[in-house]
Amino acid sequence: MTVLEVVKNRTSFRGEFEDTKIPRGDLIKIMEAGLAAPSGCNKQTTSLIAVDDIGLLHKLRGVINPQAAETAPAMICVLTQKLIAYRDRTFYIQDYAAAIQNMLLAAVALGYQSCWYEGHITDTDAIGRKMADILNVPDDYELVCFLPVGIASQPLRYADKKPFAERAWFNGFKRTD
Amino acid sequence: MTVLEVVKNRTSFRGEFEDTKIPRGDLIKIMEAGLAAPSGCNKQTTSLIAVDDIGLLHKLRGVINPQAAETAPAMICVLTQKLIAYRDRTFYIQDYAAAIQNMLLAAVALGYQSCWYEGHITDTDAIGRKMADILNVPDDYELVCFLPVGIASQPLRYADKKPFAERAWFNGFKRTD
Repeated sequence: MTVLEVVKNRTSFRGEFEDTKIPRGDLIKIMEAGLAAPSGCNKQTTSLIAVDDIGLLHKLRGVINPQAAETAPAMICVLTQKLIAYRDRTFYIQDYAAAIQNMLLAAVALGYQSCWYEGHITDTDAIGRKMADILNVPDDYELVCFLPVGIASQPLRYADKKPFAERAWFNGFKRTD
Repeated sequence: MTVLEVVKNRTSFRGEFEDTKIPRGDLIKIMEAGLAAPSGCNKQTTSLIAVDDIGLLHKLRGVINPQAAETAPAMICVLTQKLIAYRDRTFYIQDYAAAIQNMLLAAVALGYQSCWYEGHITDTDAIGRKMADILNVPDDYELVCFLPVGIASQPLRYADKKPFAERAWFNGFKRTD
């Protein structure tokens, strides 16, 4: 698939996955795609932990509430360091978002499905911190997102999107010429 | 090129562009890629304005200081609405970052180069607001980034990146097994 095809085929998959182990080589390719994303002032604030150990996946699921991605054979946890890029400016959110988007596309290109789980684990119940503790992540890193990785065993569904003309214009706000 | 090749070939291009008009169809494909990115709770907080009118490009360059992307035959301006996704949570930064990353990849896939200019225009001198005024963008939208689009006429350069093992691990922080 071309980039444009992958971009359009990608969706947030919240269904069940096949019980098929993901080759390490594929997880590495997905993580390499994440790390290849740009970052503000090249601060490279994003780090990643792929989890494919059954026992660890079980422990992580034990703190994810409500449950999500219960059947995923692997997940990639996204860590950020809130580093200053210059003066008082930080771009760590942009950095990890770009890395996540690259990984979502890479996963689809390799035949997998995934979903961007962020609010789920960064709300006030701090599930991300519980996951970080299980993975021995120190306090100067924040676990902000996890991406399940697996082969979908249920149909994909696509979010309804506003039409192009409501969100994209030429040469001026809401201009189409 | 495959997605993984495009991801690795993409770089932040700050050199000069060829003086070649970008077909509208290509700008539309790039913007469609941006709008296909996921958004928190599907709020679709990101909007886009492609600028290919010579006079408008000239006006926009007049407020971009220090100068950047002076020779780009087109630019895509990224707008955001700071909408609540749920309770007090917003994801508009993640939303536009994912959209930008999709557009950077789409541009490379189509043979163009680009660069994520954000801090440049969202600093305290508020260049983004001056650009927004030129494009008649109302106050409830913020212009947070512009992406030049063009064919590079100078060599690409790649940022130095930390090795994989310093940023990506398996089954625990800094674990490699």
